[in-house]
Amino acid sequence: MVKYPTGSRPLFTQKNRRQESTTIQYASRGMTFEERLNQSNDYYRTHQKAVIHKKPTPVQVVKVDFPKRSAARITEAYYRHASTTDYNGVYRGFYIDFEAKETINTTRFPLANLPKHQIEHMAQCHQQNGIVFLLISFKKREEIFLLPFTAIHKWLQTQKQKSIPYDYIHNHGILCQQGVFPPIDYLAAIDQLINRIQ
Amino acid sequence: MVKYPTGSRPLFTQKNRRQESTTIQYASRGMTFEERLNQSNDYYRTHQKAVIHKKPTPVQVVKVDFPKRSAARITEAYYRHASTTDYNGVYRGFYIDFEAKETINTTRFPLANLPKHQIEHMAQCHQQNGIVFLLISFKKREEIFLLPFTAIHKWLQTQKQKSIPYDYIHNHGILCQQGVFPPIDYLAAIDQLINRIQ
Repeated sequence: MVKYPTGSRPLFTQKNRRQESTTIQYASRGMTFEERLNQSNDYYRTHQKAVIHKKPTPVQVVKVDFPKRSAARITEAYYRHASTTDYNGVYRGFYIDFEAKETINTTRFPLANLPKHQIEHMAQCHQQNGIVFLLISFKKREEIFLLPFTAIHKWLQTQKQKSIPYDYIHNHGILCQQGVFPPIDYLAAIDQLINRIQ
Repeated sequence: MVKYPTGSRPLFTQKNRRQESTTIQYASRGMTFEERLNQSNDYYRTHQKAVIHKKPTPVQVVKVDFPKRSAARITEAYYRHASTTDYNGVYRGFYIDFEAKETINTTRFPLANLPKHQIEHMAQCHQQNGIVFLLISFKKREEIFLLPFTAIHKWLQTQKQKSIPYDYIHNHGILCQQGVFPPIDYLAAIDQLINRIQ
């Protein structure tokens, strides 16, 4: 559990603070997009800001062994396709639902990354007034955008291209601040999205 | 996908309708509580009433085989404890989160059925203004109650007993109508709960 010092209690001297920051940024640099997202979700949960979890990967279990005096052991199983997005939860009473995708592309986000059944799920949640979006990480640019479902839907309705250009995402999305606590502050981007809607 | 005939188009004659209903009730009788819940969720989704899914069971994968020209095969894995409840989703903009439990007991619901980490998760979601509850099936009574988290919390704060008596659940919970489409109409019970809160 990561504890962030509050502004009112100067726990660190300037020197300590620099040291701490260096260590953590080094650690954070080695983390994958998914790890940084999970750590952000842990941070939000610990600080009672939001309850958002990654769903477990669905697995079709075929065979299970029950050895004596130890845990059941799955000996044959297969990965299944998820029927929903990977992340959902609750923030200030709002239902939050999103998929997170990373691309090494710098100029566009290939839609092949987003299977049809996930788009359908997003449309269903949007219709029920959920806050639905895609978190797109442009790895080489070191930029992460929250792209609202409405912008994805608009693109799909009007364009034939199989990828969304960076400029469209830049213009219709919200840039997420990156840092240490949390590594990806997408709740701040959600606040902006909610302000836009209301 | 279950299609329910709309009132405006009399697809069935009286005789057909009776037949259909008999067949389905027979099928429904053999279904487990979980199967009937999943079918209710399918019904709600198909009819655009709510988007609520059961989360996949979390599995810790240890070994995977990648045979040529076929799907990756998991050859060693173990069940993990879920860190959340089993069901969540969105209904009319509300975040819905619940756990479903069945007991063969007729006079009480044993709290051993509800692990501590699930209660903590429910408390977190309640704090974020989610609609949080337990669906309790009294199998032998053929009754299913929606028990709001606030009632569970109140019980835990004031009582030392390791199970909640049926009468408490009857008095603080909302009885769910059971039928064919959907098998368990817990959305109607949620409507009552929302009316109570607002």
